[in-house]
Amino acid sequence: MEVKLNNKAVVLLSGGVDSATTLAIAKSEGYEVYAMSFRYGQRHDVELNAAQQVANHLGVNQHIIMDINLRAIGGSALTDDIDVPKAGEKKDDTEESGIPVTYVPARNTIFLSFALGWAEVLNANHIFIGVNAIDYSGYPDCRPEFIEAFEMMANLATKAGVEGESLQIHTPLIYLTKAQIIQTGIDLGVDYSITHSCYDPAPDGSACGECDSCMLRKKGFAEAGVPDPTIYQGK
Amino acid sequence: MEVKLNNKAVVLLSGGVDSATTLAIAKSEGYEVYAMSFRYGQRHDVELNAAQQVANHLGVNQHIIMDINLRAIGGSALTDDIDVPKAGEKKDDTEESGIPVTYVPARNTIFLSFALGWAEVLNANHIFIGVNAIDYSGYPDCRPEFIEAFEMMANLATKAGVEGESLQIHTPLIYLTKAQIIQTGIDLGVDYSITHSCYDPAPDGSACGECDSCMLRKKGFAEAGVPDPTIYQGK
Repeated sequence: MEVKLNNKAVVLLSGGVDSATTLAIAKSEGYEVYAMSFRYGQRHDVELNAAQQVANHLGVNQHIIMDINLRAIGGSALTDDIDVPKAGEKKDDTEESGIPVTYVPARNTIFLSFALGWAEVLNANHIFIGVNAIDYSGYPDCRPEFIEAFEMMANLATKAGVEGESLQIHTPLIYLTKAQIIQTGIDLGVDYSITHSCYDPAPDGSACGECDSCMLRKKGFAEAGVPDPTIYQGK
Repeated sequence: MEVKLNNKAVVLLSGGVDSATTLAIAKSEGYEVYAMSFRYGQRHDVELNAAQQVANHLGVNQHIIMDINLRAIGGSALTDDIDVPKAGEKKDDTEESGIPVTYVPARNTIFLSFALGWAEVLNANHIFIGVNAIDYSGYPDCRPEFIEAFEMMANLATKAGVEGESLQIHTPLIYLTKAQIIQTGIDLGVDYSITHSCYDPAPDGSACGECDSCMLRKKGFAEAGVPDPTIYQGK
């Protein structure tokens, strides 16, 4: 039985380079975009401000911010009082497993679950998430085998699954380098000056320039041969 | 490679008959229990009060209530302004698909995702959920194939999965009738007078006696041959 899918898509939007590019790709492929962001107990709101600017800049049908407090379960330098490591520093967790302390437990699983709920309400057949298996920093929930397993589960979890319709999870960045991601976004007209990557920004919102996320971002712009529009602290 | 699992378990606790019984089963099997409940935009807090009483009554290592607002995505009579149907009434959704309007989109997927995050922080190898495929009211995310797919996904999503450890999802009620569930709980000393099932309780917390959930509960006690300790409205 051939299933006719609609073109409605929920896009997970954090306000960083990857999710902004993912949103631009979804738009360029003709999807009707519903953007979803999360206030999950991050140390700072800079990220959500960036998400709102990106949604306005690229244009979406609707943008919602879900409030979920992941601090209650703890476990990460991004929501707890653990120091964010700077480049070259290794924290105990990293040494043992290759997974950095900035990993938030089950974060992508939780985000995709909410996207699934919204997709069901909207009757959307598509979810976009900007995960990346190349420059992925060692997070287990960025691997392609995880995404495939989530899609399989999602199609059993919902009314859509029961009614024989289908939900597809799209990961257009999964095999791209950071430089390729940035080049793709530039080609699609993304203004990266409004995106935010830093794990540990200053009170004025400027990036630290030294955390893993800043290092990856700098390297990406350098390799893409594109000027980095980010404002780094003290620059 | 044989994997040695610990005995820590996250138990999803709504305060109803099924989750109270599930918690009692986990305790009786020797698990160290961490109970997790959700304030998800339900119409009433009666359910959470019941969850707290059940946690105190049966004894847990810790009980946390996560705040997540599912109203923002809408879609169900349990969180929206759609009327809860009474016995015998059929709403449009039910007629088309057999899935009642009280279905909350992706609810069990979302709840299990949070349980997964907490399990990872606690280093717990087990999650218990009181889903039931017999008297399951037609919710797709209560089916055994959904639970199996979630478990597979969960083992790819987390550090535990990366490190070769294992996460098991336990569904001890999945093939029991409501009467068998109640009989099991009675044998384990569960006080069902503190549990809550009603989708549409009165302001004083008493059950309506007429929604699908009340009907199923009444039928369960009747078939188990056990007096129903529930206070119904006007009784």
